[in-house]
Amino acid sequence: MIQSNTKIRVRYGETDQMGYVYYGVYAQYYEVGRVETMRLLGFSYKEVEERGILLPVVEFFIQYKKPAYYDDEITIETTLREIPQGVRIPFEYRCFNSRGELLNTGKVTLVCKDKTTGKLCPLPDWFRDAFKPFFKP
Amino acid sequence: MIQSNTKIRVRYGETDQMGYVYYGVYAQYYEVGRVETMRLLGFSYKEVEERGILLPVVEFFIQYKKPAYYDDEITIETTLREIPQGVRIPFEYRCFNSRGELLNTGKVTLVCKDKTTGKLCPLPDWFRDAFKPFFKP
Amino acid sequence: MIQSNTKIRVRYGETDQMGYVYYGVYAQYYEVGRVETMRLLGFSYKEVEERGILLPVVEFFIQYKKPAYYDDEITIETTLREIPQGVRIPFEYRCFNSRGELLNTGKVTLVCKDKTTGKLCPLPDWFRDAFKPFFKP
Amino acid sequence: MIQSNTKIRVRYGETDQMGYVYYGVYAQYYEVGRVETMRLLGFSYKEVEERGILLPVVEFFIQYKKPAYYDDEITIETTLREIPQGVRIPFEYRCFNSRGELLNTGKVTLVCKDKTTGKLCPLPDWFRDAFKPFFKP
Repeated sequence: MIQSNTKIRVRYGETDQMGYVYYGVYAQYYEVGRVETMRLLGFSYKEVEERGILLPVVEFFIQYKKPAYYDDEITIETTLREIPQGVRIPFEYRCFNSRGELLNTGKVTLVCKDKTTGKLCPLPDWFRDAFKPFFKP
Repeated sequence: MIQSNTKIRVRYGETDQMGYVYYGVYAQYYEVGRVETMRLLGFSYKEVEERGILLPVVEFFIQYKKPAYYDDEITIETTLREIPQGVRIPFEYRCFNSRGELLNTGKVTLVCKDKTTGKLCPLPDWFRDAFKPFFKP
Repeated sequence: MIQSNTKIRVRYGETDQMGYVYYGVYAQYYEVGRVETMRLLGFSYKEVEERGILLPVVEFFIQYKKPAYYDDEITIETTLREIPQGVRIPFEYRCFNSRGELLNTGKVTLVCKDKTTGKLCPLPDWFRDAFKPFFKP
Repeated sequence: MIQSNTKIRVRYGETDQMGYVYYGVYAQYYEVGRVETMRLLGFSYKEVEERGILLPVVEFFIQYKKPAYYDDEITIETTLREIPQGVRIPFEYRCFNSRGELLNTGKVTLVCKDKTTGKLCPLPDWFRDAFKPFFKP
Protein backbone atom coordinates (compact mmCIF):
# COMPACT_ATOMS: atom_id res chain seq x y z
CA MET A 1 0.00 0.00 0.00
CA ILE A 2 0.93 3.67 -0.29
CA GLN A 3 0.45 5.92 2.69
CA SER A 4 1.33 9.52 3.42
CA ASN A 5 0.96 11.78 6.43
CA THR A 6 0.43 15.43 5.63
CA LYS A 7 0.23 18.20 8.22
CA ILE A 8 -2.08 21.16 7.89
CA ARG A 9 -2.61 24.10 10.24
CA VAL A 10 -6.30 25.13 10.59
CA ARG A 11 -6.93 28.63 9.20
CA TYR A 12 -9.25 31.12 10.85
CA GLY A 13 -11.55 31.31 7.84
CA GLU A 14 -11.99 27.54 8.01
CA THR A 15 -13.79 27.72 11.34
CA ASP A 16 -17.51 28.45 11.68
CA GLN A 17 -19.49 30.15 14.42
CA MET A 18 -19.71 26.87 16.35
CA GLY A 19 -15.94 27.27 16.75
CA TYR A 20 -15.32 24.08 14.78
CA VAL A 21 -13.65 23.55 11.42
CA TYR A 22 -16.59 23.69 8.99
CA TYR A 23 -17.56 20.19 7.87
CA GLY A 24 -17.06 21.00 4.19
CA VAL A 25 -13.45 22.09 4.66
CA TYR A 26 -12.24 18.49 4.98
CA ALA A 27 -12.83 18.04 1.24
CA GLN A 28 -9.88 20.44 0.80
CA TYR A 29 -7.80 18.73 3.49
CA TYR A 30 -8.38 15.32 1.91
CA GLU A 31 -7.41 16.73 -1.48
CA VAL A 32 -4.13 18.03 -0.02
CA GLY A 33 -3.56 14.54 1.43
CA ARG A 34 -3.95 12.76 -1.89
CA VAL A 35 -1.84 15.34 -3.74
CA GLU A 36 1.02 14.59 -1.34
CA THR A 37 0.45 10.85 -1.70
CA MET A 38 0.65 11.20 -5.45
CA ARG A 39 3.92 13.10 -5.16
CA LEU A 40 5.39 9.91 -3.66
CA LEU A 41 4.82 8.32 -7.07
CA GLY A 42 7.30 10.72 -8.62
CA PHE A 43 5.03 13.26 -10.23
CA SER A 44 2.54 15.87 -9.17
CA TYR A 45 -1.18 15.93 -9.79
CA LYS A 46 -0.44 19.02 -11.86
CA GLU A 47 1.70 16.93 -14.21
CA VAL A 48 -1.05 14.32 -14.44
CA GLU A 49 -3.35 17.02 -15.81
CA GLU A 50 -0.63 18.28 -18.13
CA ARG A 51 -0.32 14.76 -19.55
CA GLY A 52 -3.98 14.83 -20.47
CA ILE A 53 -5.61 13.05 -17.53
CA LEU A 54 -8.26 14.59 -15.29
CA LEU A 55 -9.17 12.94 -11.98
CA PRO A 56 -12.59 14.19 -10.87
CA VAL A 57 -14.13 12.91 -7.62
CA VAL A 58 -17.10 10.54 -7.98
CA GLU A 59 -17.63 9.66 -4.33
CA PHE A 60 -16.84 11.32 -1.02
CA PHE A 61 -17.70 9.89 2.36
CA ILE A 62 -16.70 11.19 5.78
CA GLN A 63 -17.60 10.34 9.36
CA TYR A 64 -16.84 13.02 11.94
CA LYS A 65 -15.74 11.78 15.38
CA LYS A 66 -14.38 14.95 16.99
CA PRO A 67 -14.18 18.57 15.88
CA ALA A 68 -10.95 20.36 14.95
CA TYR A 69 -10.34 23.90 16.16
CA TYR A 70 -8.61 27.02 14.96
CA ASP A 71 -4.79 26.78 14.84
CA ASP A 72 -4.83 23.00 15.45
CA GLU A 73 -2.22 21.06 13.54
CA ILE A 74 -4.04 18.28 11.72
CA THR A 75 -2.37 15.16 10.35
CA ILE A 76 -4.08 13.76 7.27
CA GLU A 77 -3.26 10.09 6.82
CA THR A 78 -4.02 9.07 3.22
CA THR A 79 -3.94 5.44 2.15
CA LEU A 80 -4.22 3.65 -1.17
CA ARG A 81 -4.60 -0.07 -0.47
CA GLU A 82 -4.25 -1.48 -3.98
CA ILE A 83 -2.91 -0.63 -7.39
CA PRO A 84 -5.93 1.00 -9.05
CA GLN A 85 -7.76 -1.36 -11.41
CA GLY A 86 -9.96 0.02 -14.16
CA VAL A 87 -10.93 3.67 -13.96
CA ARG A 88 -11.28 4.19 -10.19
CA ILE A 89 -8.74 5.33 -7.59
CA PRO A 90 -10.04 4.94 -4.02
CA PHE A 91 -8.26 6.86 -1.25
CA GLU A 92 -8.92 6.19 2.44
CA TYR A 93 -8.43 8.82 5.10
CA ARG A 94 -7.94 9.37 8.78
CA CYS A 95 -7.39 12.80 10.34
CA PHE A 96 -5.76 13.28 13.73
CA ASN A 97 -5.14 16.32 15.89
CA SER A 98 -1.78 16.96 17.56
CA ARG A 99 -2.80 14.93 20.62
CA GLY A 100 -3.27 11.93 18.35
CA GLU A 101 -7.06 11.94 18.67
CA LEU A 102 -8.94 10.58 15.66
CA LEU A 103 -11.05 13.41 14.20
CA ASN A 104 -12.63 11.70 11.23
CA THR A 105 -12.35 8.84 8.78
CA GLY A 106 -13.31 8.98 5.15
CA LYS A 107 -12.98 7.82 1.60
CA VAL A 108 -12.66 9.65 -1.70
CA THR A 109 -12.90 7.87 -5.04
CA LEU A 110 -11.47 9.50 -8.15
CA VAL A 111 -11.99 8.41 -11.74
CA CYS A 112 -9.61 8.66 -14.63
CA LYS A 113 -10.82 10.83 -17.48
CA ASP A 114 -9.26 11.67 -20.82
CA LYS A 115 -8.95 15.46 -20.98
CA THR A 116 -9.39 15.57 -24.76
CA THR A 117 -12.36 13.26 -25.17
CA GLY A 118 -13.90 13.97 -21.75
CA LYS A 119 -14.53 10.23 -21.40
CA LEU A 120 -13.62 7.78 -18.66
CA CYS A 121 -10.50 5.75 -19.42
CA PRO A 122 -8.34 3.17 -17.62
CA LEU A 123 -5.20 4.58 -15.99
CA PRO A 124 -2.50 4.92 -18.65
CA ASP A 125 0.56 2.68 -18.26
CA TRP A 126 2.96 5.42 -17.09
CA PHE A 127 0.50 6.16 -14.30
CA ARG A 128 -0.22 2.59 -13.24
CA ASP A 129 3.47 1.62 -13.42
CA ALA A 130 4.36 4.32 -10.93
CA PHE A 131 2.33 2.51 -8.26
CA LYS A 132 4.17 -0.79 -8.66
CA PRO A 133 7.25 -0.18 -6.49
CA PHE A 134 4.94 0.42 -3.50
CA PHE A 135 3.09 -2.85 -3.95
CA LYS A 136 5.87 -5.33 -4.76
CA PRO A 137 5.31 -8.65 -3.05
CA MET B 1 -41.89 13.43 4.87
CA ILE B 2 -40.59 16.98 4.55
CA GLN B 3 -39.08 18.11 1.30
CA SER B 4 -37.80 21.41 0.01
CA ASN B 5 -36.35 22.60 -3.27
CA THR B 6 -33.81 25.39 -3.02
CA LYS B 7 -32.22 27.15 -5.94
CA ILE B 8 -28.60 28.29 -5.94
CA ARG B 9 -26.61 30.03 -8.68
CA VAL B 10 -23.02 28.74 -9.01
CA ARG B 11 -20.45 31.42 -8.13
CA TYR B 12 -17.20 31.90 -10.03
CA GLY B 13 -15.07 31.20 -6.97
CA GLU B 14 -16.84 27.86 -6.56
CA THR B 15 -15.40 26.51 -9.81
CA ASP B 16 -11.95 24.97 -10.07
CA GLN B 17 -9.49 24.83 -12.95
CA MET B 18 -11.24 21.74 -14.35
CA GLY B 19 -14.13 24.13 -14.98
CA TYR B 20 -16.38 22.18 -12.59
CA VAL B 21 -17.89 23.19 -9.27
CA TYR B 22 -15.27 22.00 -6.76
CA TYR B 23 -16.41 18.79 -5.08
CA GLY B 24 -16.20 20.26 -1.58
CA VAL B 25 -18.58 23.12 -2.38
CA TYR B 26 -21.61 20.82 -2.22
CA ALA B 27 -21.21 20.68 1.57
CA GLN B 28 -22.27 24.34 1.52
CA TYR B 29 -25.07 23.74 -0.99
CA TYR B 30 -26.43 20.88 1.10
CA GLU B 31 -26.28 23.07 4.19
CA VAL B 32 -28.32 25.76 2.41
CA GLY B 33 -30.84 23.04 1.48
CA ARG B 34 -31.37 21.86 5.03
CA VAL B 35 -31.56 25.41 6.39
CA GLU B 36 -34.42 26.07 3.98
CA THR B 37 -36.07 22.75 4.92
CA MET B 38 -35.87 23.70 8.56
CA ARG B 39 -37.49 27.04 7.84
CA LEU B 40 -40.60 25.08 6.77
CA LEU B 41 -40.87 23.95 10.39
CA GLY B 42 -41.50 27.52 11.44
CA PHE B 43 -38.10 28.54 12.76
CA SER B 44 -34.61 29.10 11.44
CA TYR B 45 -31.49 27.14 12.24
CA LYS B 46 -30.26 30.38 13.79
CA GLU B 47 -33.11 30.25 16.31
CA VAL B 48 -32.31 26.60 17.05
CA GLU B 49 -28.82 27.69 18.14
CA GLU B 50 -30.26 30.60 20.11
CA ARG B 51 -32.43 28.14 22.03
CA GLY B 52 -29.32 26.25 23.08
CA ILE B 53 -29.12 23.46 20.51
CA LEU B 54 -26.17 22.87 18.19
CA LEU B 55 -26.50 20.54 15.20
CA PRO B 56 -23.03 19.44 14.09
CA VAL B 57 -22.63 17.07 11.14
CA VAL B 58 -21.51 13.53 11.99
CA GLU B 59 -21.73 11.98 8.54
CA PHE B 60 -21.60 13.29 5.00
CA PHE B 61 -21.85 11.17 1.88
CA ILE B 62 -22.09 12.25 -1.72
CA GLN B 63 -22.00 10.53 -5.10
CA TYR B 64 -21.23 12.76 -8.07
CA LYS B 65 -22.98 11.87 -11.35
CA LYS B 66 -22.40 14.97 -13.47
CA PRO B 67 -20.46 18.18 -12.91
CA ALA B 68 -22.06 21.58 -12.41
CA TYR B 69 -20.64 24.63 -14.16
CA TYR B 70 -20.24 28.33 -13.51
CA ASP B 71 -23.52 30.30 -13.54
CA ASP B 72 -25.65 27.12 -13.57
CA GLU B 73 -28.81 27.30 -11.51
CA ILE B 74 -28.79 24.29 -9.22
CA THR B 75 -31.86 22.90 -7.49
CA ILE B 76 -31.11 21.24 -4.16
CA GLU B 77 -33.83 18.80 -3.20
CA THR B 78 -33.64 18.07 0.53
CA THR B 79 -35.70 15.32 2.11
CA LEU B 80 -36.33 14.20 5.66
CA ARG B 81 -38.13 10.86 5.54
CA GLU B 82 -39.07 10.41 9.21
CA ILE B 83 -39.54 12.37 12.40
CA PRO B 84 -36.05 12.24 13.93
CA GLN B 85 -35.76 9.63 16.71
CA GLY B 86 -33.05 9.90 19.34
CA VAL B 87 -30.20 12.31 18.63
CA ARG B 88 -29.79 11.98 14.84
CA ILE B 89 -31.36 13.95 11.97
CA PRO B 90 -30.68 12.37 8.57
CA PHE B 91 -31.18 14.54 5.47
CA GLU B 92 -31.18 13.08 1.96
CA TYR B 93 -30.22 15.11 -1.09
CA ARG B 94 -30.48 15.28 -4.84
CA CYS B 95 -29.08 18.14 -6.90
CA PHE B 96 -30.29 18.95 -10.39
CA ASN B 97 -29.19 21.45 -13.01
CA SER B 98 -31.66 23.61 -14.92
CA ARG B 99 -32.11 20.94 -17.60
CA GLY B 100 -33.32 18.57 -14.89
CA GLU B 101 -30.21 16.39 -15.02
CA LEU B 102 -29.28 14.68 -11.77
CA LEU B 103 -25.89 16.02 -10.64
CA ASN B 104 -25.40 14.16 -7.38
CA THR B 105 -27.13 12.36 -4.56
CA GLY B 106 -26.11 12.47 -0.93
CA LYS B 107 -26.88 12.24 2.73
CA VAL B 108 -25.96 14.39 5.71
CA THR B 109 -26.61 13.30 9.28
CA LEU B 110 -26.73 15.88 12.05
CA VAL B 111 -26.74 15.22 15.77
CA CYS B 112 -28.43 17.22 18.48
CA LYS B 113 -26.06 18.70 21.05
CA ASP B 114 -26.74 20.76 24.16
CA LYS B 115 -24.85 24.05 23.72
CA THR B 116 -24.25 24.45 27.48
CA THR B 117 -23.07 20.95 28.35
CA GLY B 118 -21.59 20.16 24.92
CA LYS B 119 -23.19 16.70 25.18
CA LEU B 120 -25.45 14.85 22.77
CA CYS B 121 -29.13 15.07 23.68
CA PRO B 122 -32.43 13.91 22.18
CA LEU B 123 -34.30 16.57 20.22
CA PRO B 124 -36.22 18.78 22.67
CA ASP B 125 -40.03 18.62 22.49
CA TRP B 126 -40.50 22.02 20.81
CA PHE B 127 -38.20 20.83 18.05
CA ARG B 128 -39.68 17.37 17.56
CA ASP B 129 -43.24 18.69 17.72
CA ALA B 130 -42.55 21.01 14.80
CA PHE B 131 -42.03 18.01 12.53
CA LYS B 132 -45.40 16.42 13.34
CA PRO B 133 -47.67 18.35 10.93
CA PHE B 134 -45.56 17.08 8.01
CA PHE B 135 -45.86 13.43 9.01
CA LYS B 136 -49.54 13.15 9.99
CA PRO B 137 -50.94 9.78 8.96
CA MET C 1 -24.55 54.86 -14.31
CA ILE C 2 -25.51 51.21 -13.91
CA GLN C 3 -26.56 49.95 -10.53
CA SER C 4 -27.90 46.66 -9.26
CA ASN C 5 -29.04 45.38 -5.88
CA THR C 6 -28.47 41.70 -5.27
CA LYS C 7 -29.61 39.81 -2.21
CA ILE C 8 -27.58 37.03 -0.60
CA ARG C 9 -28.34 34.95 2.47
CA VAL C 10 -25.27 34.31 4.68
CA ARG C 11 -24.32 30.62 4.78
CA TYR C 12 -23.14 28.85 7.92
CA GLY C 13 -19.78 27.97 6.42
CA GLU C 14 -19.19 31.65 5.67
CA THR C 15 -19.05 32.56 9.36
CA ASP C 16 -15.91 32.20 11.47
CA GLN C 17 -15.46 31.49 15.16
CA MET C 18 -15.88 35.20 15.96
CA GLY C 19 -19.45 34.67 14.78
CA TYR C 20 -18.94 37.12 11.90
CA VAL C 21 -18.93 36.55 8.16
CA TYR C 22 -15.24 35.92 7.42
CA TYR C 23 -13.64 39.01 5.88
CA GLY C 24 -12.53 37.15 2.75
CA VAL C 25 -16.06 35.99 1.88
CA TYR C 26 -17.03 39.44 0.59
CA ALA C 27 -14.84 38.84 -2.47
CA GLN C 28 -17.44 36.23 -3.45
CA TYR C 29 -20.37 38.49 -2.55
CA TYR C 30 -18.92 41.34 -4.62
CA GLU C 31 -18.40 38.95 -7.51
CA VAL C 32 -22.07 37.91 -7.35
CA GLY C 33 -22.98 41.60 -7.37
CA ARG C 34 -21.06 42.39 -10.54
CA VAL C 35 -22.31 39.26 -12.30
CA GLU C 36 -25.87 40.45 -11.70
CA THR C 37 -24.95 43.98 -12.85
CA MET C 38 -23.51 42.55 -16.03
CA ARG C 39 -26.69 40.59 -16.67
CA LEU C 40 -28.47 43.98 -16.95
CA LEU C 41 -26.35 44.56 -20.06
CA GLY C 42 -28.06 41.67 -21.77
CA PHE C 43 -25.48 38.93 -21.42
CA SER C 44 -23.89 36.91 -18.66
CA TYR C 45 -20.28 36.92 -17.56
CA LYS C 46 -20.25 33.33 -18.74
CA GLU C 47 -21.00 34.50 -22.30
CA VAL C 48 -18.26 37.11 -22.04
CA GLU C 49 -15.77 34.30 -21.43
CA GLU C 50 -17.30 32.25 -24.24
CA ARG C 51 -16.71 35.18 -26.59
CA GLY C 52 -13.03 35.08 -25.74
CA ILE C 53 -12.73 37.74 -23.05
CA LEU C 54 -11.45 37.11 -19.52
CA LEU C 55 -11.97 39.68 -16.79
CA PRO C 56 -9.47 39.05 -13.99
CA VAL C 57 -9.43 41.30 -10.92
CA VAL C 58 -6.46 43.66 -10.61
CA GLU C 59 -7.52 45.59 -7.52
CA PHE C 60 -9.79 44.89 -4.58
CA PHE C 61 -10.42 47.28 -1.72
CA ILE C 62 -12.88 46.96 1.13
CA GLN C 63 -13.59 48.85 4.34
CA TYR C 64 -15.58 46.98 6.96
CA LYS C 65 -17.98 49.06 9.07
CA LYS C 66 -20.14 46.42 10.74
CA PRO C 67 -20.07 42.63 10.76
CA ALA C 68 -22.68 40.44 9.08
CA TYR C 69 -24.01 37.36 10.86
CA TYR C 70 -25.24 33.90 9.97
CA ASP C 71 -28.59 33.86 8.12
CA ASP C 72 -28.56 37.65 7.57
CA GLU C 73 -29.93 38.77 4.25
CA ILE C 74 -27.31 41.03 2.69
CA THR C 75 -27.99 43.49 -0.11
CA ILE C 76 -25.03 44.08 -2.38
CA GLU C 77 -25.30 47.39 -4.19
CA THR C 78 -23.00 47.40 -7.22
CA THR C 79 -22.35 50.55 -9.20
CA LEU C 80 -20.53 51.32 -12.42
CA ARG C 81 -20.24 55.11 -12.72
CA GLU C 82 -18.92 55.43 -16.26
CA ILE C 83 -18.67 53.55 -19.52
CA PRO C 84 -15.35 51.73 -19.16
CA GLN C 85 -12.51 53.41 -21.03
CA GLY C 86 -9.42 51.46 -22.02
CA VAL C 87 -8.90 48.10 -20.38
CA ARG C 88 -10.28 48.71 -16.86
CA ILE C 89 -13.78 48.20 -15.43
CA PRO C 90 -14.14 49.68 -11.94
CA PHE C 91 -17.08 48.51 -9.80
CA GLU C 92 -18.06 50.23 -6.56
CA TYR C 93 -19.84 48.45 -3.75
CA ARG C 94 -21.93 48.95 -0.66
CA CYS C 95 -23.34 46.10 1.41
CA PHE C 96 -26.30 46.50 3.72
CA ASN C 97 -28.03 44.18 6.17
CA SER C 98 -31.81 43.81 6.31
CA ARG C 99 -32.09 46.70 8.78
CA GLY C 100 -30.48 48.95 6.18
CA GLU C 101 -27.22 49.29 8.12
CA LEU C 102 -24.13 49.86 5.99
CA LEU C 103 -21.80 46.87 6.48
CA ASN C 104 -18.95 47.76 4.14
CA THR C 105 -17.93 49.76 1.12
CA GLY C 106 -15.49 48.65 -1.53
CA LYS C 107 -14.17 48.72 -5.02
CA VAL C 108 -13.12 46.01 -7.46
CA THR C 109 -11.32 46.77 -10.71
CA LEU C 110 -11.35 44.24 -13.52
CA VAL C 111 -9.24 44.29 -16.67
CA CYS C 112 -10.13 43.04 -20.09
CA LYS C 113 -7.93 40.23 -21.37
CA ASP C 114 -7.92 38.36 -24.66
CA LYS C 115 -8.39 34.68 -23.84
CA THR C 116 -6.35 33.52 -26.84
CA THR C 117 -3.35 35.82 -26.54
CA GLY C 118 -3.53 36.22 -22.75
CA LYS C 119 -2.88 39.94 -23.25
CA LEU C 120 -4.73 43.01 -22.02
CA CYS C 121 -7.04 44.52 -24.60
CA PRO C 122 -9.58 47.33 -24.75
CA LEU C 123 -13.21 46.26 -24.34
CA PRO C 124 -14.49 44.98 -27.68
CA ASP C 125 -17.24 47.04 -29.34
CA TRP C 126 -20.10 44.60 -28.61
CA PHE C 127 -19.16 44.85 -24.94
CA ARG C 128 -18.74 48.61 -24.76
CA ASP C 129 -21.89 49.24 -26.80
CA ALA C 130 -23.95 47.30 -24.29
CA PHE C 131 -23.18 49.94 -21.64
CA LYS C 132 -24.44 52.85 -23.73
CA PRO C 133 -28.20 52.68 -23.04
CA PHE C 134 -27.47 53.13 -19.33
CA PHE C 135 -25.40 56.24 -19.83
CA LYS C 136 -27.40 58.18 -22.42
CA PRO C 137 -27.26 61.89 -21.73
CA MET D 1 9.95 46.28 12.05
CA ILE D 2 8.66 42.71 12.22
CA GLN D 3 8.66 40.59 9.12
CA SER D 4 7.85 36.97 8.40
CA ASN D 5 7.92 34.80 5.30
CA THR D 6 5.34 32.03 5.22
CA LYS D 7 5.08 29.39 2.54
CA ILE D 8 1.76 28.06 1.26
CA ARG D 9 1.06 25.50 -1.44
CA VAL D 10 -1.93 26.37 -3.66
CA ARG D 11 -4.80 23.88 -3.26
CA TYR D 12 -6.91 22.67 -6.16
CA GLY D 13 -10.11 24.07 -4.69
CA GLU D 14 -8.49 27.50 -4.52
CA THR D 15 -8.26 27.76 -8.31
CA ASP D 16 -11.13 28.91 -10.50
CA GLN D 17 -12.07 28.06 -14.07
CA MET D 18 -9.68 30.72 -15.39
CA GLY D 19 -6.97 28.45 -13.96
CA TYR D 20 -5.88 31.16 -11.50
CA VAL D 21 -6.03 31.24 -7.73
CA TYR D 22 -9.40 32.92 -7.06
CA TYR D 23 -8.90 36.55 -6.07
CA GLY D 24 -10.72 36.14 -2.76
CA VAL D 25 -8.43 33.33 -1.58
CA TYR D 26 -5.63 35.79 -0.77
CA ALA D 27 -7.64 36.98 2.23
CA GLN D 28 -6.92 33.53 3.71
CA TYR D 29 -3.27 33.58 2.63
CA TYR D 30 -2.76 37.01 4.18
CA GLU D 31 -4.39 35.79 7.37
CA VAL D 32 -1.98 32.85 7.54
CA GLY D 33 0.86 35.35 7.06
CA ARG D 34 -0.13 37.53 9.98
CA VAL D 35 -0.80 34.55 12.24
CA GLU D 36 2.79 33.42 11.66
CA THR D 37 4.07 36.97 12.21
CA MET D 38 2.22 37.11 15.50
CA ARG D 39 3.77 33.81 16.56
CA LEU D 40 7.15 35.60 16.44
CA LEU D 41 5.88 37.73 19.34
CA GLY D 42 5.75 34.66 21.53
CA PHE D 43 2.06 33.83 21.46
CA SER D 44 -0.52 32.68 18.98
CA TYR D 45 -3.55 34.57 17.71
CA LYS D 46 -5.55 31.84 19.42
CA GLU D 47 -4.11 32.87 22.78
CA VAL D 48 -4.89 36.52 22.01
CA GLU D 49 -8.57 35.55 21.71
CA GLU D 50 -8.35 33.43 24.85
CA ARG D 51 -7.07 36.48 26.73
CA GLY D 52 -10.20 38.36 25.71
CA ILE D 53 -9.05 40.29 22.64
CA LEU D 54 -10.64 39.98 19.20
CA LEU D 55 -8.86 41.39 16.13
CA PRO D 56 -11.42 41.87 13.35
CA VAL D 57 -10.32 43.27 9.99
CA VAL D 58 -11.45 46.83 9.19
CA GLU D 59 -9.64 47.33 5.92
CA PHE D 60 -8.30 45.05 3.20
CA PHE D 61 -6.56 46.21 0.05
CA ILE D 62 -4.83 44.15 -2.60
CA GLN D 63 -3.33 44.82 -6.01
CA TYR D 64 -2.86 41.80 -8.25
CA LYS D 65 0.21 41.83 -10.53
CA LYS D 66 0.41 38.21 -11.68
CA PRO D 67 -1.79 35.16 -11.14
CA ALA D 68 -0.81 32.17 -9.03
CA TYR D 69 -1.54 28.65 -10.27
CA TYR D 70 -2.42 25.28 -8.82
CA ASP D 71 0.40 23.62 -6.85
CA ASP D 72 2.54 26.80 -6.83
CA GLU D 73 4.45 27.42 -3.66
CA ILE D 74 3.63 30.96 -2.59
CA THR D 75 5.72 32.99 -0.16
CA ILE D 76 3.71 35.47 1.87
CA GLU D 77 5.89 38.28 3.17
CA THR D 78 4.13 40.03 6.05
CA THR D 79 5.47 43.25 7.51
CA LEU D 80 4.55 45.38 10.49
CA ARG D 81 6.46 48.66 10.24
CA GLU D 82 5.72 50.19 13.65
CA ILE D 83 4.59 49.26 17.12
CA PRO D 84 0.82 49.61 16.86
CA GLN D 85 -0.48 52.86 18.33
CA GLY D 86 -4.08 53.16 19.46
CA VAL D 87 -6.50 50.48 18.31
CA ARG D 88 -5.18 49.69 14.81
CA ILE D 89 -2.65 47.08 13.63
CA PRO D 90 -1.66 47.58 9.96
CA PHE D 91 0.00 44.65 8.16
CA GLU D 92 1.64 45.04 4.76
CA TYR D 93 1.96 42.17 2.32
CA ARG D 94 3.83 40.94 -0.71
CA CYS D 95 3.29 37.52 -2.26
CA PHE D 96 5.86 35.82 -4.46
CA ASN D 97 5.86 32.61 -6.46
CA SER D 98 8.76 30.16 -6.37
CA ARG D 99 10.50 31.98 -9.22
CA GLY D 100 10.57 35.11 -7.06
CA GLU D 101 7.99 36.94 -9.18
CA LEU D 102 5.84 39.45 -7.31
CA LEU D 103 2.21 38.26 -7.44
CA ASN D 104 0.48 40.93 -5.42
CA THR D 105 0.92 43.58 -2.76
CA GLY D 106 -1.60 44.44 -0.10
CA LYS D 107 -2.50 45.77 3.29
CA VAL D 108 -4.78 44.51 6.05
CA THR D 109 -5.68 46.62 9.06
CA LEU D 110 -6.96 44.95 12.21
CA VAL D 111 -8.54 46.64 15.20
CA CYS D 112 -8.35 45.62 18.81
CA LYS D 113 -11.69 44.78 20.40
CA ASP D 114 -12.59 43.75 23.94
CA LYS D 115 -14.32 40.37 23.68
CA THR D 116 -16.53 41.01 26.73
CA THR D 117 -17.74 44.53 25.94
CA GLY D 118 -17.51 44.20 22.14
CA LYS D 119 -15.95 47.67 22.08
CA LEU D 120 -12.75 48.92 20.49
CA CYS D 121 -9.86 49.23 22.94
CA PRO D 122 -6.15 50.12 22.77
CA LEU D 123 -3.81 47.14 22.70
CA PRO D 124 -3.32 45.87 26.25
CA ASP D 125 0.20 46.23 27.73
CA TRP D 126 1.12 42.53 27.49
CA PHE D 127 0.34 42.74 23.78
CA ARG D 128 2.12 45.99 23.00
CA ASP D 129 5.16 45.02 25.10
CA ALA D 130 5.65 41.92 22.98
CA PHE D 131 6.38 44.10 19.95
CA LYS D 132 9.15 46.08 21.66
CA PRO D 133 12.13 43.71 21.17
CA PHE D 134 11.59 43.94 17.40
CA PHE D 135 11.67 47.72 17.32
CA LYS D 136 14.55 48.57 19.71
CA PRO D 137 16.57 51.50 18.43
